[in-house]
Amino acid sequence: MGFKAKLRSIVDDNTTKKGKIFDYTIQILIFTSLTAYAIETLPGISDLTKSILFWIETVCIIIFTVEYVVRIFIAKNPFKYIISFYGIIDLLAILPFFLAVRYDTIALRAFRIFRIFRAFKLIRYNKALNRFHLVAKLIREELILFLIVTGIFIFLASAGIYHFENAAQPELFTSIFHSGWWAIVTLTTVGYGDVYPITVGGKIFTFFILMVGVGIVTIPAGLVASALTKARQMEEEALLEDIKSKELIQESQKESDNSNNN
Amino acid sequence: MGFKAKLRSIVDDNTTKKGKIFDYTIQILIFTSLTAYAIETLPGISDLTKSILFWIETVCIIIFTVEYVVRIFIAKNPFKYIISFYGIIDLLAILPFFLAVRYDTIALRAFRIFRIFRAFKLIRYNKALNRFHLVAKLIREELILFLIVTGIFIFLASAGIYHFENAAQPELFTSIFHSGWWAIVTLTTVGYGDVYPITVGGKIFTFFILMVGVGIVTIPAGLVASALTKARQMEEEALLEDIKSKELIQESQKESDNSNNN
Amino acid sequence: MGFKAKLRSIVDDNTTKKGKIFDYTIQILIFTSLTAYAIETLPGISDLTKSILFWIETVCIIIFTVEYVVRIFIAKNPFKYIISFYGIIDLLAILPFFLAVRYDTIALRAFRIFRIFRAFKLIRYNKALNRFHLVAKLIREELILFLIVTGIFIFLASAGIYHFENAAQPELFTSIFHSGWWAIVTLTTVGYGDVYPITVGGKIFTFFILMVGVGIVTIPAGLVASALTKARQMEEEALLEDIKSKELIQESQKESDNSNNN
Amino acid sequence: MGFKAKLRSIVDDNTTKKGKIFDYTIQILIFTSLTAYAIETLPGISDLTKSILFWIETVCIIIFTVEYVVRIFIAKNPFKYIISFYGIIDLLAILPFFLAVRYDTIALRAFRIFRIFRAFKLIRYNKALNRFHLVAKLIREELILFLIVTGIFIFLASAGIYHFENAAQPELFTSIFHSGWWAIVTLTTVGYGDVYPITVGGKIFTFFILMVGVGIVTIPAGLVASALTKARQMEEEALLEDIKSKELIQESQKESDNSNNN
Repeated sequence: MGFKAKLRSIVDDNTTKKGKIFDYTIQILIFTSLTAYAIETLPGISDLTKSILFWIETVCIIIFTVEYVVRIFIAKNPFKYIISFYGIIDLLAILPFFLAVRYDTIALRAFRIFRIFRAFKLIRYNKALNRFHLVAKLIREELILFLIVTGIFIFLASAGIYHFENAAQPELFTSIFHSGWWAIVTLTTVGYGDVYPITVGGKIFTFFILMVGVGIVTIPAGLVASALTKARQMEEEALLEDIKSKELIQESQKESDNSNNN
Repeated sequence: MGFKAKLRSIVDDNTTKKGKIFDYTIQILIFTSLTAYAIETLPGISDLTKSILFWIETVCIIIFTVEYVVRIFIAKNPFKYIISFYGIIDLLAILPFFLAVRYDTIALRAFRIFRIFRAFKLIRYNKALNRFHLVAKLIREELILFLIVTGIFIFLASAGIYHFENAAQPELFTSIFHSGWWAIVTLTTVGYGDVYPITVGGKIFTFFILMVGVGIVTIPAGLVASALTKARQMEEEALLEDIKSKELIQESQKESDNSNNN
Repeated sequence: MGFKAKLRSIVDDNTTKKGKIFDYTIQILIFTSLTAYAIETLPGISDLTKSILFWIETVCIIIFTVEYVVRIFIAKNPFKYIISFYGIIDLLAILPFFLAVRYDTIALRAFRIFRIFRAFKLIRYNKALNRFHLVAKLIREELILFLIVTGIFIFLASAGIYHFENAAQPELFTSIFHSGWWAIVTLTTVGYGDVYPITVGGKIFTFFILMVGVGIVTIPAGLVASALTKARQMEEEALLEDIKSKELIQESQKESDNSNNN
Repeated sequence: MGFKAKLRSIVDDNTTKKGKIFDYTIQILIFTSLTAYAIETLPGISDLTKSILFWIETVCIIIFTVEYVVRIFIAKNPFKYIISFYGIIDLLAILPFFLAVRYDTIALRAFRIFRIFRAFKLIRYNKALNRFHLVAKLIREELILFLIVTGIFIFLASAGIYHFENAAQPELFTSIFHSGWWAIVTLTTVGYGDVYPITVGGKIFTFFILMVGVGIVTIPAGLVASALTKARQMEEEALLEDIKSKELIQESQKESDNSNNN
């Protein structure tokens, strides 16, 4: 086994012991790095804490950079990896640091936000995603239709409430776009209370919007439940067929044994 | 193929290339028209923007009018199309403009709202609605029952809280109708915070109303989930039967071939 | 057919034409009576309106009383009807009026609330309740367990937040009972905003309570969805068996016909 | 039957009459003890009430202590019971009292909170938990993945809103941790209204966060619904196999009877 294959067994394969250690190390580093990022935003942290956080950040970035380079090196098609979803995430996780070091200006603050992309790196290492992938595939069409219908519904709600409330509360329901904030906060049932109808017409309109809207909001739960039931069934059937084909192989082997014996 | 049939293949049929182009054009126009409508409501827009928006509106309306006339022309039964759901939507989408042009008065503002009906035109072009249609048919009875029970429950909640809170907050719980606003905002769990019980009795009453009400609110999700599972199953069975009948045809063909050969 | 049987076919049976007319009449009267009850609570209604509402009320009550007496008269076991769920509802719907007429005092106000029981009368006439009855039976045990767990959870949340927030907000989190109001408003995700944690400990506690609590709140939706799927399946199996048994009967008839012919 | 076995039939077995009485007694005591605990927190209770509550508390504790000792005594492996989930709960339910009696200081207040663990004792006596156990086992993996994804999503939402709102509302969105409070209150759709975005950027960000977030929040309902459907199916299959195996046993018995007769 060559050096490249050895590396691959550590970085890509998380069934081997070394692969597992590598995976957990990277996961702990991502978690550490994200925590450091969050602590950095706390007001009134001391200079000592700042420099500790900077060192943690630097160490994490170095390891992530090494990981990125290794992943390019071991990839069968390096270019394909670079433009893949995880390749871009891996790059975006380290890029802000190098840009910040090179252009140590006010732009640093803006690029800091890209560090949150590291959070996405956590998902790669989870193998339980498969069923959700199947579910996502099963409900893709319905989900798109749901988003279109929801979009239309939010527009209708915004335009409607604008006509009812604009005269009474011009500073809150200034335009259809401003009313859109009310629509999303109401239809998701968050209801902060910063904006709500006060006219009788607006309240009656909200009544009907909520009666339909709450029904619409429950559709994704139904979609997921139905698709998960289907996914479970498909997995079971695949398992059953697996067992059957194994039995068939055993039977045919026995038969051939018998015929050989005969 | 006559001119009428040709037109029909473009306007009604979205499987042909020309039909697809027509569909996407109309969809983009609806989207543009709705965006223009929303921008118009923004305060402090310049006269230039206003005139651009007016031209966009006019162009959209002309195309929608042509579309409406063509649809009447190609329909096998023009009257049936005019009084159909989509026929009415198509008319309501253009009517306000012509009314506004003819009676350029204050009534214009009131008719503007009908422009939002254009949003409904977006739904026609989506073919993924079929399963939802099946689901809607499966749960129709339960949904009606659910709406009746919800209606009764909202009335009970309104009447109950009115008796508990009317004395303490007469300006918020003025009558059962006013209390209805509290009931709908609470039972949908929006909870703006503009109106809530302050008496001990009202709070305990809200406790029980919420315990039952939250359970009621979850029923539509259950209905949709169960009906989607059923719809999937029905589709599969239809598919299986399709396959079986094809196999039967093939078998009978083989048999007849065999008997012919014999 | 005697007079009693004739009456029974109108009052109890809603498949006959007269039965349907009777049913719809009663339903419209209940609706009218409830609307009148709600209008009565509006402040500043004129004396004329008041007297009209009183006459509507009186007519409704007379008809409901006649209905109650007729139902006792036609019942095979009058006593059983009187102590049945609907019997009690029917009585509670008319009782407050007679009590108010006899004791025209301040107690009238308190008894008024019982008039909302008329709303329950609306449910009797709906035949789509059967599936929900089956669902209710299927999930009864789980629902009871859910209510127990929810009860314990609300207690834990109330006791926990009391210890975190009592010192900081003694007027809102005065005792575990007062904190219970916060618990129910938060766990049902209503979130009025009249009471919320302000200490860091209370906020972190709320975080964990919500993570678990929102999961708990979704269980009823799951229960209903799963039970509805089961109920549909049971109905279908019952239908299939019905068809099969009919076929068996037909086959056995044919066989007996054949044997007779032979 | 020895004394130990007799005790075991009362304490451990709730199918016997004595066992049921014991169970209900303990459950009523837990309920009484929890109610007393809640009443104790009410401000302005009289000295008489306080001493009554103290006596209730003492009696409950004595019985719980006896129960704990008896459970150790009758356990086949006393040490295993002590370190089991219910063993620890049973100890935590009585420990605070004895610590408070011995060290009657300010620490008493802090230990009081452990009394709420008594609530967990209520769950033991419920036998309907089995299906939920099965459901929990079926969805364990998906639930863990859900918690990871939710965790990442809350972090992303917190970091994002921090960058949008920190400049406009530094006292509310002070750091990513402070923004986390907004994230959890918004994503669970509680929406107290104590903290919400006011910038246009923050509002648009909230729009997208809610569109995805509300979808994520509905996943547990789908998981539970799907797993409950599966659990029902498994129970039925187990029942069917049970019936089949019984039939097989009966058949084989008949056969052996026949062969014996022959």
